[in-house]
Amino acid sequence: MPFAVPVAEQRFLLQHVAGINALAAMPAFADATPDMVDAVLEGAASFAEGAFAPLNRVGDTIGARRTEAGVMMPPGYVAAYHDYVAGGWGTIDADVALGGQGLPFSVATAVLESLGTANLSFALCPTLTVGAIEAISAHGSVEQQTMYLPKLVTGEWTGTMNLTEPQAGSDVGALRTTATPQADGTYRIKGTKIYISYGEHDLAENIIHLVLARTPGAPAGTRGISLFVVPRFRVCADGAIGAANDVRCVSIEHKMGLHASPTCVMSFGDRDDCIGEIVGPEHGGMRAMFTMMNNARLNVGLQGVEIAERATQAAVDYATGRVQSARAGAASRESVAIVEHPDVRRMLLRMKALTQGARALCYHAAGQVDRAHQGDAAARVRVDLMTPLVKAYGTDVGVEVSGIGIQVHGGMGFIEETGAAQHYRDARIAPIYEGTNGIQAADLVGRKLTGDAGAGLAALLAEIRGEASDEAGLMVLVDSVERVAEALRTGDGDDRLAGSYPFLTMLSVATAGWLMARQGRAAVGDDGFARMKRAVVRFYLDRLVPEAAGLSAGALSGAAGLYAVGVEELVA
Amino acid sequence: MPFAVPVAEQRFLLQHVAGINALAAMPAFADATPDMVDAVLEGAASFAEGAFAPLNRVGDTIGARRTEAGVMMPPGYVAAYHDYVAGGWGTIDADVALGGQGLPFSVATAVLESLGTANLSFALCPTLTVGAIEAISAHGSVEQQTMYLPKLVTGEWTGTMNLTEPQAGSDVGALRTTATPQADGTYRIKGTKIYISYGEHDLAENIIHLVLARTPGAPAGTRGISLFVVPRFRVCADGAIGAANDVRCVSIEHKMGLHASPTCVMSFGDRDDCIGEIVGPEHGGMRAMFTMMNNARLNVGLQGVEIAERATQAAVDYATGRVQSARAGAASRESVAIVEHPDVRRMLLRMKALTQGARALCYHAAGQVDRAHQGDAAARVRVDLMTPLVKAYGTDVGVEVSGIGIQVHGGMGFIEETGAAQHYRDARIAPIYEGTNGIQAADLVGRKLTGDAGAGLAALLAEIRGEASDEAGLMVLVDSVERVAEALRTGDGDDRLAGSYPFLTMLSVATAGWLMARQGRAAVGDDGFARMKRAVVRFYLDRLVPEAAGLSAGALSGAAGLYAVGVEELVA
Repeated sequence: MPFAVPVAEQRFLLQHVAGINALAAMPAFADATPDMVDAVLEGAASFAEGAFAPLNRVGDTIGARRTEAGVMMPPGYVAAYHDYVAGGWGTIDADVALGGQGLPFSVATAVLESLGTANLSFALCPTLTVGAIEAISAHGSVEQQTMYLPKLVTGEWTGTMNLTEPQAGSDVGALRTTATPQADGTYRIKGTKIYISYGEHDLAENIIHLVLARTPGAPAGTRGISLFVVPRFRVCADGAIGAANDVRCVSIEHKMGLHASPTCVMSFGDRDDCIGEIVGPEHGGMRAMFTMMNNARLNVGLQGVEIAERATQAAVDYATGRVQSARAGAASRESVAIVEHPDVRRMLLRMKALTQGARALCYHAAGQVDRAHQGDAAARVRVDLMTPLVKAYGTDVGVEVSGIGIQVHGGMGFIEETGAAQHYRDARIAPIYEGTNGIQAADLVGRKLTGDAGAGLAALLAEIRGEASDEAGLMVLVDSVERVAEALRTGDGDDRLAGSYPFLTMLSVATAGWLMARQGRAAVGDDGFARMKRAVVRFYLDRLVPEAAGLSAGALSGAAGLYAVGVEELVA
Repeated sequence: MPFAVPVAEQRFLLQHVAGINALAAMPAFADATPDMVDAVLEGAASFAEGAFAPLNRVGDTIGARRTEAGVMMPPGYVAAYHDYVAGGWGTIDADVALGGQGLPFSVATAVLESLGTANLSFALCPTLTVGAIEAISAHGSVEQQTMYLPKLVTGEWTGTMNLTEPQAGSDVGALRTTATPQADGTYRIKGTKIYISYGEHDLAENIIHLVLARTPGAPAGTRGISLFVVPRFRVCADGAIGAANDVRCVSIEHKMGLHASPTCVMSFGDRDDCIGEIVGPEHGGMRAMFTMMNNARLNVGLQGVEIAERATQAAVDYATGRVQSARAGAASRESVAIVEHPDVRRMLLRMKALTQGARALCYHAAGQVDRAHQGDAAARVRVDLMTPLVKAYGTDVGVEVSGIGIQVHGGMGFIEETGAAQHYRDARIAPIYEGTNGIQAADLVGRKLTGDAGAGLAALLAEIRGEASDEAGLMVLVDSVERVAEALRTGDGDDRLAGSYPFLTMLSVATAGWLMARQGRAAVGDDGFARMKRAVVRFYLDRLVPEAAGLSAGALSGAAGLYAVGVEELVA
C-alpha cells in the first residue's frame, strides 16, 4: 500500500504545538533553523519511506527467528539498519560532544515518528537505545559515558532495558536477579529477564543491556534495586570489542504482532561469568529506571500515533479505490467510491481526529521536554503530568484507530494480505509495555495529581481556559475534569484508583482538544492542508470532546461498587 | 484455561429477559417446561465444554487447510461434529415434522451460545446451516423442503450462504453470477463467490449452497436477483447422494482469526455443469436473502457475546491467579492477586457488564422471534428493530471485551500461547460479516426508524420508561435517544446516515440498560449469582449508560462537517 510520512503535519505541529520557533531562539538550539528542521524532516521521511516501510510486511510474515547462530532479523533489516546508522538518524538530539547533532528532542520525536510510522517493529530498536543513552547520560560515570555513549548515539551499538521477570512485571520491586560485587569493582549478574525487546539480534556489533538487579543484603522491594550496564560483548579499555559476556537469549516469544521485534527471554550468568558495572549509586536503580522509562513512555505513546497514522493512510487509500453502492439519496445510481458514503467518512475522520489529537499530545510533551532540559521548572512539571497521558491515550488511540482501519476495509480487513490486520495486531502491545495503561492511570492520580496538590493540573487547565474559552464544549469538559480531579485528589485512595482510567481519558481529550483548537485557529487559508486541518479539528471538538465528557460519571463512581462482588462471584 | 458455560445466567435470561414462562404457556411451546429447558441447557453446556471447547486452540494453530482431497478441518473436528449431529444439538427449535424438537428459538439461542462460547469458529458452521433451513422453509417448494430440510435440521448436511462477489459486497445488487434456465426446470449456475464460510469441509456428507444469482434479462440491481439451492452432491429422488455437482472451493483465505472456519472462494460452473434449483419466485432473491440474513444477524450478534464471555472467563481466571504488588493503601505489603487492584476490577466488571448487556439484547430479541412466529405483530416489529442493535452492539462488545481481556493479561496477553490473543483476533470479523455494522446502522435509521414513522421505536421507549422510570441516568439517555431519533428521522438523509452509528450505540445501551435494570430487580437474595448480577447491573447503569449519553453530540453533528474536506485532502 502507498505510504508517505505526513511531513506537512509534522512541520505544523513543531511550529504550533511544540513551539519550535521559541526553541530555536534559545542558544542551545540555535541550529534548529527552519531550513535545518525542514531538511531533517524531509530526509527522515525519505529514508523511512524508502528503507523502513518496504520491510514492514516481511517483518510480519517472516519475523525475527532464533537460530543456532543467535537471533536473526528478517531479510533486509540488517542492511536497512546499517543505512540508518550511516544516515545519522539516531543522533538528532544527542549532545554534539558525543557525536550528536544537538537539535531539540521535538525534532528527534518527529524523526522517530517517521521511522515508526514506516515500520513499528523496526523503530522499536532505536527507541530502546534512546532509553539506554538517557540512563547512562544521567547516572553513569564519566568512564561509562565515554565507553558507551558515542556508539549508542550513532546506533552502532543498541541498548535494551531489562526490568521484567516472571514474578515481577508491574511490580518491579519483586525482581530477584542478583548482582554480586567483585574485588575489581564490577558485579557478577545472575538471573532471568523476560519480555526483553531486541534482547538479541544481528543488527549491531554490540548490545548494551541495562539490567535491574539486587545486591547482597539489599532491602526488599524497589528500594533495594540497583542498575547495571551489561554489554553483550565486553568492551576493552581502548573501546574495542572483547570477549563475549555470559548473557544469552534462551527463547523468543510467539507474539500476536510486532513479529520483527524479537521479544527475548534473557539469561544472565548461566555460567556465573556475567560481568556488569553498576550505574549510579547502589540502591539507586528505581531512579535510574524512571529516567529510562519516562522518555520511553513518551515514545511508546508516539508508537500509538505511528500505527494510527499508518492505519489511517491505508484506510483512506482503500476507501478512495473501493467502489461500492450508489450514494444514498443521490440522483445518480452509479456506484461510488466508499469514501463518499457518510458513515465511511465518519470513520475516516474519526481516525484522523484521534490520530492528530494524540499526536498533538506527543508534540506538546516533546516541546516541554526541550524546555525542561533548558532548566524550565514549569516545563518539567508539565512533562511529568503529560507522560501518562501521552503513553496511555496515544496507545489507546493506536488500538482504536487500527480497529476502525479494519472496519473500513470490510472483509478485506480480516485477510492478512491486506495489511490492515498487521496494524491491528501490532498496535495491541503498546497499551501494555513500558507500564500498562492502568499503571499510567495510577501514576496520574497518584504521583502526578496528588504529589503537588494539583498545582500542575491547575496550571494546565488555566492555560486551556485562557486560550480556548470560545470552545463551549471543551469548556464543559474542562470544568468536568476539574470537578473529577478535585474529587479524586481529596477522596479515598480506592475511589481514586477506581476512577483513574476514565479520568486519564477525560484529561487527555481535554488537553488534545485544546491543542487541536489552537491548530484550527492557525490553519488559515484555503490550501488543502488547512481545509483538512480545520475539518479534523471540528470533528475532534464537536464529537470526541463530548464523548469524553460522558466518562465523568464512571470516574466519580468510586470503588465500593467494584468490591460489592466477591472474587468467587466474579468467577461464577 | 478453564471454561464453563454460564448456565445459571442463561436460565436467568430465559426467564427474565426472553420470557420463557409466557412462551411455555403457548400451545406451540407446551414442551418447554422448566425441567425440559434445564435439561437442554445442562446437556448443551456439558457437550460444549467437553467436545467443542478443547478444540478451540488447535483450530487456531492448525486451522482448516485446503488439500488435494478438498478442505480438511483441524484434528478432532470431524469426530466432534459427528457427536454434535448424534446429540441432536441442531434440532432444538426445528419443526417436529422435520425431526426437530419444536422448542422455542430462545432455547436454541442458548444452545448455540454454549457451542459458540466454547468454540466460535466451529459453531459458525451450524449457524450457517440455520440460515439455509430458514430460507428453504420460508421460500422453498414442498419438494425442496422434503429433500433438504430433514438432513439440514440434524446437521447431517450443512448449509452455506453465497452472496458476496469481489465487486459485490455490501452492494449485493452488483453481483454477476448467472443462472440459466434448462428445459427440465433446473438452472445452470456460473460464477465466483468469495468469503463463503464453510464453503467446503469434511464434516458432513453434503453441503447445501444457497446462491444468489441473476437470470437472463433480469433487471439491474437487487430487483433482478434470484435465490438458488445448489448442493455440492446432487440428491437423487430417493434422497440418496448422487454425483458431484460442478462446484468447488478454489482457495481459502489466510485470515487474522477464526482459523478453523474455512473461508472459501467458491467457483460454480467451471465446467458449465453446475445445476441448481430456484428457491421461491424469479427475482425474489432479496426477500429470501433477508430471511436468511435476519436470523443470521441475530446469531452473529450472539457471537460477539460468545467471544466476550470466553474472554471474560479467561481474564477473571488470570486475574485471580496472578499475584502482583500489594494493594495500594492496605496495611499489608504482601502482594495480592491482581483481581484485588481497583483498576483491574474495573476492567473485569466492564467486561462482565458489556457482555451481559449485549446478551440481554440477544435474549430479548430471541423471545420476540418466538412471539412473532406465533403471529404477534408487535413482536415482529420489535425483532426488526432489534436486529441491527443485536448484530452491531453485540459484535462491538465482542471486540471491546476481548481487547480488555488482553489488557488484563498484561504482557502475557500478547503471547499467543495464552489464548487471549486468539479471542481478540477471532472477535474482529463479527462487526464485518453478515452486513457490516455500518450497514446495520444505516438499516436502523433507514428502514427501521423511518419505515414506520418511528412507531416501533416509540413503543420500545415507552416500554423502557414504563418499567425503569426509577433509573435516572437511564431516563436521561432515553430522552436523549428520543431527541436524536426525531432529529434523524425528520432530517436530511446524509445527516441521518452521519449520525447513524452513534445513534445505534445509544439505543443499544438504552435497551440493554432497561433489560439490565429488570435483571437487577429480579436478582433478589444473597446467593453468589444474585450478588454478582446486582453489581454488574449497577456497573452497567452507573457507568456505561452515562458514557452512551456522551454520544448524542456526535449523532446530531450532521454530515456537512464530514464533507467539508475533499477526498484529495483526506489523502494528504
